[in-house]
Amino acid sequence: MTTAGYYAAVDWGTSSFRLWIIGEDGAVLAERRSAEGMTTAAKTGFHTILDGHLAAVSAPAHLPIIICGMAGARQGWKEAGYIETPAALAEIAGRATAIPDVDRDIRILPGLAQRDRRHPDVMRGEETQLLGAAAHLGAGSHLVCMPGTHSKWVRLADDRVEGFSTFMTGELFDTIARHTILSHAVAEADTFAAGSAAFTDAVSRTRENPALATNLLFSVRAGQLLHGTAAADARAQLSGTLIGLEIAGALAGSGSVDGVCLVGSGGLGTLYRTALESQGLNVRAVDADEAVRAGLSAAARAIWPL
Amino acid sequence: MTTAGYYAAVDWGTSSFRLWIIGEDGAVLAERRSAEGMTTAAKTGFHTILDGHLAAVSAPAHLPIIICGMAGARQGWKEAGYIETPAALAEIAGRATAIPDVDRDIRILPGLAQRDRRHPDVMRGEETQLLGAAAHLGAGSHLVCMPGTHSKWVRLADDRVEGFSTFMTGELFDTIARHTILSHAVAEADTFAAGSAAFTDAVSRTRENPALATNLLFSVRAGQLLHGTAAADARAQLSGTLIGLEIAGALAGSGSVDGVCLVGSGGLGTLYRTALESQGLNVRAVDADEAVRAGLSAAARAIWPL
Repeated sequence: MTTAGYYAAVDWGTSSFRLWIIGEDGAVLAERRSAEGMTTAAKTGFHTILDGHLAAVSAPAHLPIIICGMAGARQGWKEAGYIETPAALAEIAGRATAIPDVDRDIRILPGLAQRDRRHPDVMRGEETQLLGAAAHLGAGSHLVCMPGTHSKWVRLADDRVEGFSTFMTGELFDTIARHTILSHAVAEADTFAAGSAAFTDAVSRTRENPALATNLLFSVRAGQLLHGTAAADARAQLSGTLIGLEIAGALAGSGSVDGVCLVGSGGLGTLYRTALESQGLNVRAVDADEAVRAGLSAAARAIWPL
Repeated sequence: MTTAGYYAAVDWGTSSFRLWIIGEDGAVLAERRSAEGMTTAAKTGFHTILDGHLAAVSAPAHLPIIICGMAGARQGWKEAGYIETPAALAEIAGRATAIPDVDRDIRILPGLAQRDRRHPDVMRGEETQLLGAAAHLGAGSHLVCMPGTHSKWVRLADDRVEGFSTFMTGELFDTIARHTILSHAVAEADTFAAGSAAFTDAVSRTRENPALATNLLFSVRAGQLLHGTAAADARAQLSGTLIGLEIAGALAGSGSVDGVCLVGSGGLGTLYRTALESQGLNVRAVDADEAVRAGLSAAARAIWPL
């Protein structure tokens, strides 16, 4: 082990790449971020991209690398498989897949799969955030919300994943805003205030009556035509309707829930916190970037103990 | 009035144009169909397109023309305004807008608007189908389903529109199938059987638990990854989830409903009939093409009595 680092941790998603060089004491010694996600890497080459970033931070030749995310998908660098739920988070490190025929020790963490024929579901990357977040949560049962393109809601009990559900919220928001008649209503606003009444009102209305979701979406357009709804409010309504539907679904059949652990960051984290609190839920926030780094580190220390 | 026709009836939608020459006895003397909807006509010119079709069927120079649909939208030929709900269907003909400065008598029928700030909604074209369908329905209260890009559900009482709700079902289906991660799951199938268990099962599951709609959408992808769901079944699940959500929403708060008037045609009509009957609803079907022609004819005869 050189003084220049203990291991490198990589979060390699569909459209983003992040790398941290971590020291023996857990300190972040260097960081790299780029848009070279799986989509780009599948063309450019995963090894080439990784080597470029390691060279840029003068990483030692034999620094081991731990990776999570879509690099482990079938269409990624090497398929890293899935651990089946219910699953202990501790299994994640033990089931890492090594990249063969390379000079370094490079391992990709597996995803989680729920094979239940009525509720099939998969995650890849979020399991590592969970592993990192779990250290903050302690024993007992937790409902964890991980917002994103495909939001994940996880039922965690004593560091075991009991089950989870994915909601297509983020992808639907982008697709509807770009490709449907609502694009006319939202086009002139890039963003909206998380605290706007248009947002929290849409969250509440959809949570109360989720069956009306696709009607409430059309009413965004009708409201613009008939009442001149401002673009920022229209965007807030679209977002609030989809997030309200997600919250209604995630809490359906969960019995009484008073608190949610929110693993998010940036504007999206703020938006979900606002939405959850508007529904009377206590939110315990864990930063998503820190969680994924903590999860990668927990796995690295299990695989390569000091 | 020439023997060659009493009036021409035109259904001018966003992406389609249909014209019928109708005789004094109500017979269809000639018919034209094309893809020159509002989108095309806004570039080519509405008058040019209409004249071309009239010339193709040798229509008399002064044949009057009745038009419904998006030709009356703000971005259409001439804005034909909206009648506000609650509204008697008989008002439709009385509020037609004439095209100025043309040799013929050309009128565009208005749409319907529901200005309620909590449930703003609009329709343009379907009001004319309703006018035509109402002749089949008789007095009393009816719940009318008009499937399409933007499905309309209308509460009709004694030829008055009490209120209506639009669901973005058709547009969401197309957009999700083309532009989201589900495109991988459905790409290899253009269609599916309306009677497939995958379709009716998805309708039932979403109607039972509409809050899970965007989770059930993701499970289409997860089912393909984990269980190799066939593309036709994946497409049926996507369609069934969106139609099940629509039915759940349309019936929410309607009290007990045992019958629905379905104004549809072709494959989409069959699909909705299957979905509605799978939910134990009695379906009374009215052909959508006949309904719009009947509605245009009812308006024409009110405007230009024999």
